[in-house]
Amino acid sequence: MDQFERRDFLKKATIGVAGGVAALAGCSPASDEKPGAPAVHTRKKYEWKMVTTWPPHFPILGEGADMLARWIDEMSGGQLKITVYGGGELIPPLEGFDAVSQGTVEMCHGAAYYWAGKAPATQFFAAVPFGMNGQQLNAWIYSGGGLDLWQELYAPFNLVAMPVGNTGVQMGGWYNREMNSIADFHGLKMRIPGLGGKVIAKAGGSAVLSAGGEIYTNLERGVIDATEWIGPYHDYLMGFFRAAKYYYYPGWHEPGTALELIVNRTAFEQLSSDLQRVVETAAARSNAWMLSEFEAKNSAYLGKLTTEHNVVLRRFSDEVLKTLRGFSVEVENEVAEVDPMSKKVYASFDAFRKNIDPWAALSEKLYYSAIGG
Amino acid sequence: MDQFERRDFLKKATIGVAGGVAALAGCSPASDEKPGAPAVHTRKKYEWKMVTTWPPHFPILGEGADMLARWIDEMSGGQLKITVYGGGELIPPLEGFDAVSQGTVEMCHGAAYYWAGKAPATQFFAAVPFGMNGQQLNAWIYSGGGLDLWQELYAPFNLVAMPVGNTGVQMGGWYNREMNSIADFHGLKMRIPGLGGKVIAKAGGSAVLSAGGEIYTNLERGVIDATEWIGPYHDYLMGFFRAAKYYYYPGWHEPGTALELIVNRTAFEQLSSDLQRVVETAAARSNAWMLSEFEAKNSAYLGKLTTEHNVVLRRFSDEVLKTLRGFSVEVENEVAEVDPMSKKVYASFDAFRKNIDPWAALSEKLYYSAIGG
Repeated sequence: MDQFERRDFLKKATIGVAGGVAALAGCSPASDEKPGAPAVHTRKKYEWKMVTTWPPHFPILGEGADMLARWIDEMSGGQLKITVYGGGELIPPLEGFDAVSQGTVEMCHGAAYYWAGKAPATQFFAAVPFGMNGQQLNAWIYSGGGLDLWQELYAPFNLVAMPVGNTGVQMGGWYNREMNSIADFHGLKMRIPGLGGKVIAKAGGSAVLSAGGEIYTNLERGVIDATEWIGPYHDYLMGFFRAAKYYYYPGWHEPGTALELIVNRTAFEQLSSDLQRVVETAAARSNAWMLSEFEAKNSAYLGKLTTEHNVVLRRFSDEVLKTLRGFSVEVENEVAEVDPMSKKVYASFDAFRKNIDPWAALSEKLYYSAIGG
Repeated sequence: MDQFERRDFLKKATIGVAGGVAALAGCSPASDEKPGAPAVHTRKKYEWKMVTTWPPHFPILGEGADMLARWIDEMSGGQLKITVYGGGELIPPLEGFDAVSQGTVEMCHGAAYYWAGKAPATQFFAAVPFGMNGQQLNAWIYSGGGLDLWQELYAPFNLVAMPVGNTGVQMGGWYNREMNSIADFHGLKMRIPGLGGKVIAKAGGSAVLSAGGEIYTNLERGVIDATEWIGPYHDYLMGFFRAAKYYYYPGWHEPGTALELIVNRTAFEQLSSDLQRVVETAAARSNAWMLSEFEAKNSAYLGKLTTEHNVVLRRFSDEVLKTLRGFSVEVENEVAEVDPMSKKVYASFDAFRKNIDPWAALSEKLYYSAIGG
């Protein structure tokens, strides 16, 4: 992926809303003969479809979807075969929730905040400004009751949810001017989706939505003043360093965005228990792999940005962060008030965060400030 | 596990060196009839043994071994059954490396630094004082070339290695006196194994080894002045708060200890590729789960220690940490000089760490100091 060209990357990022709706997914009993196996045996075979919200084979995220399908195929000895479709190849990128809910396809690989319009509480399972980082979010999901709430939230939609990755802490974004105080957010036109966009609006800016393929041009032409994307690796591939002068950190708006796999519940329940466990376990492996991959690639590409392209790094001041944090708390509470399930999920999320803080202060916080580095 | 009693915990922790050597592990073709399956089929079945370095069902670590075996059983549809033995139940806890190498048992669940006597470089795959934390160590292993080096290191022993978990940042340990300056380490008798013990020795103390079940009594009677163990959850279960006054942080000596699964290479290569993938994927799931579990449980039990037992928390001063870091660098370099493989592994470890630092400074470090909390 190192030789990845921005042109290819943009082409992939622009794959859009074309594409029809899939036929009902097949599930056909077939022979399962394998060379060298002690005996011929027949087991029910499944051919599933996984749509994704990413361009096909998109670095790390789409690659993760491809690997997930391959691991499931391999572990099941070919019993559960999953064809992966990039966003727009089979259905539009952001229609995966409905397609899986209705059983048009069996799986969607994406991020829960894309479904905020279906259920606002989904956002707590993806990214909350000034929320938890990847390690803490995983602790809440796996060991703090988060996963049960996620299933409860998705059950009415006939969906099963699983975490499949995390981006780690993102970068704060590319700006064509310096952001020295909160006043600099007044009138700022920034491409920033989700809850982060609502925070920017509270700060006096306007959150603009642009498809991935339009961001670079909009930034270059001054249609927008700023954009966030992901982190050094993906931002390098997008070439934003040619269109905006200042690269701000930290990514307060997405401190550890979780990626998600959703599975049609009816289809999942028809699988034998061994195949159910295969799917769950492949998802968890992907979760471990993806964060590792982000950490490794972002490390390498931060160096490329600063040494090859003289990118100007700027840190948001503590005062700016403090003000944005205040707006974020307002935004979180607004989400929590939308419906009872959002309130319930937020209560669990917030309690876990408050409980882990004193421990983090003695452990990971000091790792980064006094042990590592 | 919340009702876990210190007495039971100590009993488990004292399970010792008794126990014979296992018979050669069985591997018997058998019928694989399952109720409701479309057709009867016969696949080769395996019955394996996994020894562990932990007491049976030891919180998180032993539980992780149990879950690993269960996931593999379930995913393989009962084709690969693994019986888990606590340390001392089948062989002494620290003889797993030889037993798996020789094929006496197929698997051992433990930590790589227990095998420093076999190959010093193993320590870089477990815990290095002032080394990387769990997230960064995983990034090196999965995405930075670490896993290939681990296999290269273990190949002469006929072993395959996989990461299966991480403790997260540990605590600095329990002390019966305040540690205000590096001079306070002179003459200190501390139970601390591994590279951390070598650092303590350089600081003028003496590193004492005690079996888990003897630590409490030795600390209470003044045979030792201090001990490290793991973190708030396990330390609470051990009741150390009754035997020492000061609980120090951070755990500079083990900032993110990786747990390991080793598999006899011959046995592993005899598995069909689907079963090989099942083992690898279960290991990665365990890796994600274990760190989450440590984070969640340590958060909860830190609160119990401070609110229920008025434990006095003390932070090592920056000056103490700086001096210990200097000794740690000496210790690392001494390990790297022992043999060419240690030098090679250390070079990769150290290069990855130096490369990830600038990225961590813009991301996770600021998460802990300016975004979260």
